[in-house]
Amino acid sequence: MKLYTFFRGSSPFRLRIALNLKGLPYESMPVHLGKNEHQRAAFGAINPQQLLPALLLEDGQVLTQSLAIMEYLEEKHPAPALLPKDPYGRARVRALSLLVACEIHPLNNKRTLDYLRSGVGRSEEQVADWYRHWIDDGLGKLEAAMTRDSASGRYSHGDTPTMADCCLVPQVFNAQRYKNDTSRFPTVMRVYAECMKLEAFDRAQPSKQPDAE
Amino acid sequence: MKLYTFFRGSSPFRLRIALNLKGLPYESMPVHLGKNEHQRAAFGAINPQQLLPALLLEDGQVLTQSLAIMEYLEEKHPAPALLPKDPYGRARVRALSLLVACEIHPLNNKRTLDYLRSGVGRSEEQVADWYRHWIDDGLGKLEAAMTRDSASGRYSHGDTPTMADCCLVPQVFNAQRYKNDTSRFPTVMRVYAECMKLEAFDRAQPSKQPDAE
Repeated sequence: MKLYTFFRGSSPFRLRIALNLKGLPYESMPVHLGKNEHQRAAFGAINPQQLLPALLLEDGQVLTQSLAIMEYLEEKHPAPALLPKDPYGRARVRALSLLVACEIHPLNNKRTLDYLRSGVGRSEEQVADWYRHWIDDGLGKLEAAMTRDSASGRYSHGDTPTMADCCLVPQVFNAQRYKNDTSRFPTVMRVYAECMKLEAFDRAQPSKQPDAE
Repeated sequence: MKLYTFFRGSSPFRLRIALNLKGLPYESMPVHLGKNEHQRAAFGAINPQQLLPALLLEDGQVLTQSLAIMEYLEEKHPAPALLPKDPYGRARVRALSLLVACEIHPLNNKRTLDYLRSGVGRSEEQVADWYRHWIDDGLGKLEAAMTRDSASGRYSHGDTPTMADCCLVPQVFNAQRYKNDTSRFPTVMRVYAECMKLEAFDRAQPSKQPDAE
């Protein structure tokens, strides 16, 4: 499998963690978002949405959207599981994942920030304020969801890592990069620290990628 | 089941379609986003994320995030299926769903527009420009994804409605409300028209809800 990735992009980061947790080898195909390589025709032929990540399978098919790809990996390679067995638990893990994927990340990804600059005329400082606002808002919602019931354990859900952790960790990396005050989210940060003890998470982090700068 | 919903909100609209397609009865619990009822303590006790939709199950458990709830319904009530059987098809339907749920809707939902007004100081006209920009961008990506291979049929994927259609239709309603030029997206609009012939979609539309204004 070939993973079209960018070391700093948080959706490819989710997928690197999931692939590592499942012990699935892949070849990194770096696409430099900063140089807008994702907008070039060469990558458009892989993913017409021109978004990262994309996963090229052995049979030539291409999967897109990180959460859809994680579900595919879960169905094709069920062990170790990234979703619990019970329907309510599965819904909870998916909801925690979507909290990051729908409520935080789209507001802070590159094309949104680019449009804030070019279409809305925001300065770099104002763009950073926008970024931090949505991290504060979204990690606050995640903290509330994780502390609501007793289902969060060592990790976001129970005592084994799930899709929710694959989404949480890259988002915390972003929060730290933008110097958000993460002390407001003690449960999120406790789970983050637990995850980073695992080799699958550690090896997936931006600074350890072949295209790291 | 009780569905916390707002007639115009596009995530609750997705879920109303899915419940109708599966023939599952539910009680509508209107939460008026325009009056900020979702931010009140009463609704916070249901969903601490203070986001719509939420589905209260018979056993008292609460599900959140429309895509997570649709997956739950699919697992508990598999027929009629909203996902195809083959793993690649399932990944494709989920990716089309996430294209709407992650790449369009978060940029245009109420809290984002509210922050554009209060935090960024945009005028109503500028907010509408922002809204239309992301619909054009996102529906363009959806059109590209749907025309890329032959898997789109009468509906987004094949000849029976799927989760992808539950996401597509509410987004087209939004495009029409903001008077986007939808003629640029012929495949999206053809599928939309097919969906609206079905009673499950028609009955879920905003104007037919008990809280419609």
